[in-house]
Amino acid sequence: MKTARVAYSGAIHTATPYDDSRLRLADGRIVLHDDVVWLPPFEAGTIVALGLNYAEHAKELSFGAQQEPLAFLKGPGALIGHRGHTRRPADATFMHYECELAVVIGRSAAGVRRDCAMDYVAGYTVANDYAIRDYLENWYRPNLRVKNRDTCTVLGPWFVDAADVPDPHALALRTLVNGVVTQQGNTRDMVFDIPALIEYLSGFMTLAPGDVILTGTPDGVVDVKPGDEVITEIDGIGSLRNTIVGDDVFGR
Amino acid sequence: MKTARVAYSGAIHTATPYDDSRLRLADGRIVLHDDVVWLPPFEAGTIVALGLNYAEHAKELSFGAQQEPLAFLKGPGALIGHRGHTRRPADATFMHYECELAVVIGRSAAGVRRDCAMDYVAGYTVANDYAIRDYLENWYRPNLRVKNRDTCTVLGPWFVDAADVPDPHALALRTLVNGVVTQQGNTRDMVFDIPALIEYLSGFMTLAPGDVILTGTPDGVVDVKPGDEVITEIDGIGSLRNTIVGDDVFGR
Repeated sequence: MKTARVAYSGAIHTATPYDDSRLRLADGRIVLHDDVVWLPPFEAGTIVALGLNYAEHAKELSFGAQQEPLAFLKGPGALIGHRGHTRRPADATFMHYECELAVVIGRSAAGVRRDCAMDYVAGYTVANDYAIRDYLENWYRPNLRVKNRDTCTVLGPWFVDAADVPDPHALALRTLVNGVVTQQGNTRDMVFDIPALIEYLSGFMTLAPGDVILTGTPDGVVDVKPGDEVITEIDGIGSLRNTIVGDDVFGR
Repeated sequence: MKTARVAYSGAIHTATPYDDSRLRLADGRIVLHDDVVWLPPFEAGTIVALGLNYAEHAKELSFGAQQEPLAFLKGPGALIGHRGHTRRPADATFMHYECELAVVIGRSAAGVRRDCAMDYVAGYTVANDYAIRDYLENWYRPNLRVKNRDTCTVLGPWFVDAADVPDPHALALRTLVNGVVTQQGNTRDMVFDIPALIEYLSGFMTLAPGDVILTGTPDGVVDVKPGDEVITEIDGIGSLRNTIVGDDVFGR
């Protein structure tokens, strides 16, 4: 089962795939992909992101290996859905996408051990968590100007039930910029896998249904410019499309 | 005008002061302070906190002066209200309170200049933003284990309208542990004042109504233990009471 969350005809709907170009809304209406606004596919609570959770990506940013997960939070204002526009500030010298598996929590988790951590996962979606690299001073500080811009965390298109993903640690993921593959990886290469992340986080904070963990990105991040079409995709989870726009769209 | 948000008789209510021991609910009922559960006095959106925003406190933690605001995010799971219980983990070696003026945003703010920034403030409350200092590796990293524990960000008791606070940069603030004053300061000593913070943050992220900025704490932070009663108060804003409890209360 996979579901989208879309705005259509004055309301927000849950929708399921119908065919290659259409969705079926929960009320039975069949609508074109092009005729809805795609929102993040679930209502997110606490948004946890992981820095440097693929070794080759850490190397690419010239950071050493970490001893524990480098987790930080994102605010709800950063989120947009599939087919949305992401702003590249004119004064940024380097802005990169990050294709990531997003893990959605399904039930309250406090003090969960890794061997039963997967029971707390409701499902998955694709994330594209942009970074403005200019302000990336060191690995301790993925600060707000790097990682909490409006429109810079894209989620979707689908929320995929955990039951439909037999092994979330064996998924190929990739990014295409204007149709050219620029990033490739596999979730098997996470430094801290999903059970380790749930054990770590739930050890000091209670995870709630709707909380989401963005599990980090592999190497292969390149600068993007206004006009670029960026597709982040994970086999079996979805293909998330997004377009970079400039400051002019925002009137300043 | 000041308001509280409380749970009583099966529902959540807005309430106003009635006398020293009673509240008036919006529906007209008069109830004892002791008979309600005090919640954070507004529904928080994005929660931004400032590190080291009072020079003497930065010195106390052995950090140098910062060139720009050190802002980080907190998740909704960290919040509790007045008279709540805050957990001190048994394995923490140092846990300190932080009395802070919390600034609540009243309307959407993007690219706001400091000279009109105060127009975007809806009001204020008192915050007590605990830190588990064990994991405070450097000032770049007020990481999740330091600053995003369940129950460790206390807000309340009152939301005070901005119109009733003529000068938010001239408020005495203090903390009492078991009746003894351990921390004293004045909001005039913020390194980055409220307009500077709104200008900085709104320069790269849109602030929305209900978003809150915890503006940092002065020096005078000491370790607290289970059983301690901690009162953080700001003249004209409120007196926020909180009790430290141990892991045993949480069954582990």
